[in-house]
Amino acid sequence: MLNLPISFLFSGGGGGGVLQGTTCEAILCTLTAARDQMLDKIGRENMGKLVVYGSDQTQSSLQKAAKIAGINPSNFRSLLTTKSTAFGLSPNSLKSAIQSDIKFGLIPLFFCATIGTTSSNAIDPLGPLCDIAKDYNILVHIDAAYAGSAFICPEFRHFLQGIEGANSFSLNAHKWFLTTLDCCCLWVKEPSALIKALSTDPEYLKNKVSDSNQVVDYKDWQIALSRRFRAMKLWLVLRSYGVSNLRNFIRGYVKMAKHFEGLIAMGKRFKVVVPRNFAMVCFRISPLMMGNANQKILGEEDANEFNRKLLESINATGRVYMTHAVVGGVYVISLAVGATLTDYCHVNKAWKEIQEHAHTMQNPFDYFARDVMAKSFTAIRGADE
Amino acid sequence: MLNLPISFLFSGGGGGGVLQGTTCEAILCTLTAARDQMLDKIGRENMGKLVVYGSDQTQSSLQKAAKIAGINPSNFRSLLTTKSTAFGLSPNSLKSAIQSDIKFGLIPLFFCATIGTTSSNAIDPLGPLCDIAKDYNILVHIDAAYAGSAFICPEFRHFLQGIEGANSFSLNAHKWFLTTLDCCCLWVKEPSALIKALSTDPEYLKNKVSDSNQVVDYKDWQIALSRRFRAMKLWLVLRSYGVSNLRNFIRGYVKMAKHFEGLIAMGKRFKVVVPRNFAMVCFRISPLMMGNANQKILGEEDANEFNRKLLESINATGRVYMTHAVVGGVYVISLAVGATLTDYCHVNKAWKEIQEHAHTMQNPFDYFARDVMAKSFTAIRGADE
Repeated sequence: MLNLPISFLFSGGGGGGVLQGTTCEAILCTLTAARDQMLDKIGRENMGKLVVYGSDQTQSSLQKAAKIAGINPSNFRSLLTTKSTAFGLSPNSLKSAIQSDIKFGLIPLFFCATIGTTSSNAIDPLGPLCDIAKDYNILVHIDAAYAGSAFICPEFRHFLQGIEGANSFSLNAHKWFLTTLDCCCLWVKEPSALIKALSTDPEYLKNKVSDSNQVVDYKDWQIALSRRFRAMKLWLVLRSYGVSNLRNFIRGYVKMAKHFEGLIAMGKRFKVVVPRNFAMVCFRISPLMMGNANQKILGEEDANEFNRKLLESINATGRVYMTHAVVGGVYVISLAVGATLTDYCHVNKAWKEIQEHAHTMQNPFDYFARDVMAKSFTAIRGADE
Repeated sequence: MLNLPISFLFSGGGGGGVLQGTTCEAILCTLTAARDQMLDKIGRENMGKLVVYGSDQTQSSLQKAAKIAGINPSNFRSLLTTKSTAFGLSPNSLKSAIQSDIKFGLIPLFFCATIGTTSSNAIDPLGPLCDIAKDYNILVHIDAAYAGSAFICPEFRHFLQGIEGANSFSLNAHKWFLTTLDCCCLWVKEPSALIKALSTDPEYLKNKVSDSNQVVDYKDWQIALSRRFRAMKLWLVLRSYGVSNLRNFIRGYVKMAKHFEGLIAMGKRFKVVVPRNFAMVCFRISPLMMGNANQKILGEEDANEFNRKLLESINATGRVYMTHAVVGGVYVISLAVGATLTDYCHVNKAWKEIQEHAHTMQNPFDYFARDVMAKSFTAIRGADE
């Protein structure tokens, strides 16, 4: 369905797949395997020299996995991204960071690229990044937790160009693939590294089929010994809908997000902050659009604060729920379409809700003035009582 | 319900509890916290000197967690237990191991004690073991994955004597507490150590209640960021049955296991190998009971092989399913009572099944003779075809 390179598959390529709970578990497993493979070569006494790379847009799971795997926190690199590359990691940044670490006697180990970051759905350019990783013998994991499901549609697969240079790939079917939490699909090129790092072989787990290598012992592909039967729920989703209906779902979500973009574009106050790639729209009330012609333009900090309060006010209704992020210093509100029953009426209603709340908060200059007044008033009342 | 010391609880003691998936995750979290606490004191460059202790009966989860957390595999101690202490770890063994490691410049870090081991439900003596751990500043986790549920009954709580000296305690409600996989209950004395080791604080996860410390952010108590709502299923079990019914279930399972012990004792061929503590009976056909008076007694290896084949033959029917272990070199078959609907009729049926299979395999001397003949016969037939 995803058209992954054969090197990631059980069928012929020597790779294989496993269902994990979450991305953090998936990364922890692949990182542990990478770590032990490297330490076998260079000796365990060099553990403190290993370096892990991501961008400042990489999900916090990478940092957490690195902490748990015992990577020195000062060897965790969160490389700067900018608006100029739409917050994708520039290959040159990775290269410079690696070269600098090598100069200081450190050992580059692992890089996590992201397709569809949490904050803004940014996309790291896989091809050039994997090439650099290869030059320096670094293992690459691709985190496509959110965006991965879209790759059942051929029109999105161009984002995966270069994936054959990576060592592992994961996506979360529990995001917008109609599957309940938790269901993280992980593919690896080299299961033996995973098994070497994670296997234990006590007597009470021995049995004929395991001994004869007739089965895949998934306990050696994951953290826990016991496993819930997650494949069942994913299989039911696949069999119930079929691939063309699932593609329709994904395309429908993306179309609704485009529709929401259109609604924003029709007005003047709101603006889409970063390019939309899938079904998430990152927008805000622009500071340029906030003041009257006669008033001075709001500073970025005030604009951020105003958008923060706007989101808080909308979410407090319980009728719409959106999240936020800060990208390049800009506070953005994120509307993600992707729940099973979401339709155009809900997107329109969300837009209406957003506009109404913005209207109630009115002119941000007035708003901030009111806020100060309200606080003073409360303080006076508090003193009286 | 468990009457845990207040130091483990949210209510007053400064401790707290969290639902994890499995014991391995619970241990990995507490071990990571212990590791980082220690490294903060002694410097990260000493990571390779940290030592983790368990007994040769400790579940393989400890070894796996230690591997993932980056503990040097040569610093993992699996201390020998013997039949003389019913496979509980002798405090002197722990002490000698610690002293020897210190002499070699290593740094003892973490000890995992078990109440109710996987192989034989053995019990490590908590009090004296925790005393030793305290003398050497080692953190102690108590793994009561299986046995823990029994401690809702006061008559089993004497096994927990000394628990106040431990740092964390876990049990799996998904074993015989009527809760589906996965549901591991972990209590810790010092949540702040866990939070320090496992927290990440990205902008997109920030919100008012988290910032104001009004809530427990369980993402910082576990590996994954996302969490399934496991509390719901456990709560439903607790509210549906109530504590006295749950006690009846546990007591019922133990009584049925005692009944099975009685059935074994009535015959001559089978023998209970290690003392039964809860609802699991470890038994085998004794080599002493195998031969006729005129025949020589089977060696231990042949006896193990015979019991292995017996278990295989029983499990192949699909009517009863039992597991096995090797304790002190002896292959034992384990019958565990604990599924929700198990009743005396099932235990009796299991016993009948066991006897019938043993009877069919008949006299082990004949059996082995037959086996050799059968093999030769197959070989001849194979050559013919």
